[in-house]
Amino acid sequence: MNDQVKGTKALAFDVFGTVVDWHGSVAREVRALAKVKGLRVNAVKFAKAWRAGYRPAMDRVLRGEAPFEKIDVIHRAILEDVLRQFKVATLSEDEKAHLNLVWHRLKPWPDTVRGLKRLKSKFVIATLSNGNTSLLVNMAKHGGLPWDCVFSSDTFKLFKPDPGMYLGAADALSLKPEQVMMVAAHKADLRAAAKCGLKTAFVKRPLEHGRGGTPDLASEPDFIVNAESFLDLADQLGC
Amino acid sequence: MNDQVKGTKALAFDVFGTVVDWHGSVAREVRALAKVKGLRVNAVKFAKAWRAGYRPAMDRVLRGEAPFEKIDVIHRAILEDVLRQFKVATLSEDEKAHLNLVWHRLKPWPDTVRGLKRLKSKFVIATLSNGNTSLLVNMAKHGGLPWDCVFSSDTFKLFKPDPGMYLGAADALSLKPEQVMMVAAHKADLRAAAKCGLKTAFVKRPLEHGRGGTPDLASEPDFIVNAESFLDLADQLGC
Repeated sequence: MNDQVKGTKALAFDVFGTVVDWHGSVAREVRALAKVKGLRVNAVKFAKAWRAGYRPAMDRVLRGEAPFEKIDVIHRAILEDVLRQFKVATLSEDEKAHLNLVWHRLKPWPDTVRGLKRLKSKFVIATLSNGNTSLLVNMAKHGGLPWDCVFSSDTFKLFKPDPGMYLGAADALSLKPEQVMMVAAHKADLRAAAKCGLKTAFVKRPLEHGRGGTPDLASEPDFIVNAESFLDLADQLGC
Repeated sequence: MNDQVKGTKALAFDVFGTVVDWHGSVAREVRALAKVKGLRVNAVKFAKAWRAGYRPAMDRVLRGEAPFEKIDVIHRAILEDVLRQFKVATLSEDEKAHLNLVWHRLKPWPDTVRGLKRLKSKFVIATLSNGNTSLLVNMAKHGGLPWDCVFSSDTFKLFKPDPGMYLGAADALSLKPEQVMMVAAHKADLRAAAKCGLKTAFVKRPLEHGRGGTPDLASEPDFIVNAESFLDLADQLGC
């Protein structure tokens, strides 16, 4: 086992893209709804447009230009924009409310649940996500994700990459930052965690943006672990 | 099923005494340590004295007379007092630190894990405890408690019976107070939850203070459920 892994007590997981397939899950539900409602919508583009509004909205909060809101609220505001953009005007309030909660129903990657169960045998496993608590709890029930603990943006009233998220999780677990390993498919998240003293594990998710996506999948020597899946991560962490 | 139960989505559990047997667990460890170290200590009285310092310490925080601290820190301060009171001066720092973490190792009541698994099949099950997050997470791993979510005093930087604890849990779950049922062996906790609009389930724990204890075990019509155990609670909630 990699010597730098020693001393790790807890794994903190990014969720959207790392644990679950937001792109495929959202596109699937949008496609099904379009069929039922007779809408002409490119479901893949719809999913990407919805997701694209997410980072700018969080950044406005972190810059102090908007008050803190749960991601459910942010997702709903973006959804309204995207519906206008795609010229969809025939959804009822109930249909929009239900569609907005697709983010609570995102599907785990095929290796996720088996990998988490193995990792849980040796480490505390926690979310550390910009999603809100109820979203993460519902998603876990829906997908069988066996978290020991759920840390969310509304636990700390912040969003990643604010240091308060990474340091907040370590403090809540009564651990030193170097006893916590951030696990993510996104290098910026890992670099922000590393700046706070956390260990880092990069997990490659080639399909995060669908079949046509071109995510950065290069291993980096800066990260303590570079893994192909949660099963590979479990192997590398000796679980 | 009791009509008043309808609409309940989540159960929030008091932990010390309700989910786990603090009295028996602490007394057992103190007795074992006393044997190893050759101390003459009444382990039952020691456990009770340690626990007795807990409520006054939290009340000082709630009155603004002391800053918020994790229960681990409060337990340690009380332990120092109790060690002086019992004239124990021969414990090393490591032994005291280890003993203090007995609260992370409290054992579930015999019906707890089976009951929680049944309740989890229908409801979100969360802690709502004055313990700190790491204590509750370690206890869950130690005892196999299958929480969906851990809410603790350090989630909200408050202690029960502050309304911010009960309302904070409902808000984090994106539920109305009446969609959350507080489960506790302590009537004051349930009455504070009811004042905030939560539903209430009283679970009787006759051995919370050991065999000689005289806890108030009378059912109350004010509580929506009065249960003999978590299995009885699961029956009454249709799980």
